[in-house]
Amino acid sequence: MIVTVTLNPALDITHRVDRLRPHSAHRVREVGARAGGKGVNVSRVLHTLGLPTLVTGLAGGPTGEAVRRELCRAELPELLTPVDGETRRTVAVVDEHTGDTTTLLEPGPVVRPEEWRSFLADFAACVERATVVVLSGSLPPGLPEDAYATLVHAARARAVPAVLDTSGPALRAALPAGPALVKPNADELAEATGESDPHRAAEALRAAGAEAVVASLGPDGLLAVTPEGAWRAVPPERLRGNPTGAGDAAVAALARGLAAGVSWPRRLAEAVALSAATVAAPLAGSFDPTVHRRLRDAVDVHPLPPLPPLPALS
Amino acid sequence: MIVTVTLNPALDITHRVDRLRPHSAHRVREVGARAGGKGVNVSRVLHTLGLPTLVTGLAGGPTGEAVRRELCRAELPELLTPVDGETRRTVAVVDEHTGDTTTLLEPGPVVRPEEWRSFLADFAACVERATVVVLSGSLPPGLPEDAYATLVHAARARAVPAVLDTSGPALRAALPAGPALVKPNADELAEATGESDPHRAAEALRAAGAEAVVASLGPDGLLAVTPEGAWRAVPPERLRGNPTGAGDAAVAALARGLAAGVSWPRRLAEAVALSAATVAAPLAGSFDPTVHRRLRDAVDVHPLPPLPPLPALS
Repeated sequence: MIVTVTLNPALDITHRVDRLRPHSAHRVREVGARAGGKGVNVSRVLHTLGLPTLVTGLAGGPTGEAVRRELCRAELPELLTPVDGETRRTVAVVDEHTGDTTTLLEPGPVVRPEEWRSFLADFAACVERATVVVLSGSLPPGLPEDAYATLVHAARARAVPAVLDTSGPALRAALPAGPALVKPNADELAEATGESDPHRAAEALRAAGAEAVVASLGPDGLLAVTPEGAWRAVPPERLRGNPTGAGDAAVAALARGLAAGVSWPRRLAEAVALSAATVAAPLAGSFDPTVHRRLRDAVDVHPLPPLPPLPALS
Repeated sequence: MIVTVTLNPALDITHRVDRLRPHSAHRVREVGARAGGKGVNVSRVLHTLGLPTLVTGLAGGPTGEAVRRELCRAELPELLTPVDGETRRTVAVVDEHTGDTTTLLEPGPVVRPEEWRSFLADFAACVERATVVVLSGSLPPGLPEDAYATLVHAARARAVPAVLDTSGPALRAALPAGPALVKPNADELAEATGESDPHRAAEALRAAGAEAVVASLGPDGLLAVTPEGAWRAVPPERLRGNPTGAGDAAVAALARGLAAGVSWPRRLAEAVALSAATVAAPLAGSFDPTVHRRLRDAVDVHPLPPLPPLPALS
């Protein structure tokens, strides 16, 4: 089972309006609401692929209850640790006239130290049943910067590899704990390392403690730097659509490949195909299975020559 | 006790953002959430005035639960009848740069016939304990057009006067049932009667069954047409601020005056003062007590000459 962790999940609300006009009142034509957050999206993709998964993290208040109910309806098992604060909402206002989306992102509840300790106890129990753990997204207010480092350590202590998809201080603080894989995007990679070349930046993250680094480069595919070599994986075509959740789909494929022990080139081809199939679907966590099947054998995966050794990340 | 009925309550969410830019993502600086809907606002005003009140209506889903919890925190007693559908949300996005607000109004749940029957049973029990019932706002999807007529009849059968604040077909359908008071605004009055002169329009609503009509004319105050005569009540000054909830404050004052049996001129002066004090406060259902005290004895209430008899509303 692949256990995902979403410490700051959300209720993602979609409001479809005829046309968004600032400073006026709008009747919402159609309301959608579903559980969101990067780890939740990863579990949704894994579930659709027929793989057992468990959503963990923190949830509280009526919005947390709405998240639990929607996960239940989607048949996604969850073991979210209760918190007193209210789970955040995101509101995406879709302008039916232009097709554009305006989003409002709440910050999320402040997590208290005893709530974090309670989550750690729940996490320890879940890790016993996990083949891989996936740690995704930003940390909610109140959590220590090294929260992901603590979770990577707890997983490694039980010989369970951890896949980490976060950015900034939370990413940097987790590297010395030795995550099996980190998956920054190009901006996050540059920001974490101060290095503009993705290959050099990925090597710097490895030097700082990550076993493997897969960077998502948007429509240009993936760059992987691993103990077994370095690769670029490029989609055979560019798809138009909604890129939200494409990175989460790549993480789902990479976690699945790690759990199954398939070769890196195969993992990367799957990750690029699933990512592209997500761009072709309207909602994060959903993918177009036809696009997925069509692309998975057409992704161009080629090895990269090794770089000269780099100094460790300061 | 004044019982208020809100058949389509809402969770009113406020999102403060630095600046609203359509088609981009916004971090919400400050999140507010409170129970809303016109009857809820009326109860909030009555509660602040120290009068016993009960919030009734329909609520469902996690958003309904959030409405209940907020009413509990505000110490507003409620007896909301459960429904399966999800209570609606409204989102008000406040642009901190311009001070303007953009609102998104969800339609509300579809109410099933058995849920409406369940509400009617609850309402009958509540009316036993009421001095006045206040029926406020639009009908949610699924309810019959004569829903308010049914409630007015049920109240009158127990000799409890009903104050009705709604519009369109729901208003017209309720008039023959004989509400003690209806409170349209100028637009609602013209729309319900096809008559542009407010005094003639108000007389037409009386001819159709309302015992008394008080029309809210925005900053120009109130017009009352009652069995005891007709009046205009004009505030002594124009206040700037947020007019949301000003009509609900007027209804609260009128319901209180009806319950206490005070004279019409006194009722109207209170309604204008409380309405103006609501404009001076930032949230619907709240009012500025200093403005309320300052204005209540300064409202100009003067009688109007009777109109010639009109034909009944067709």
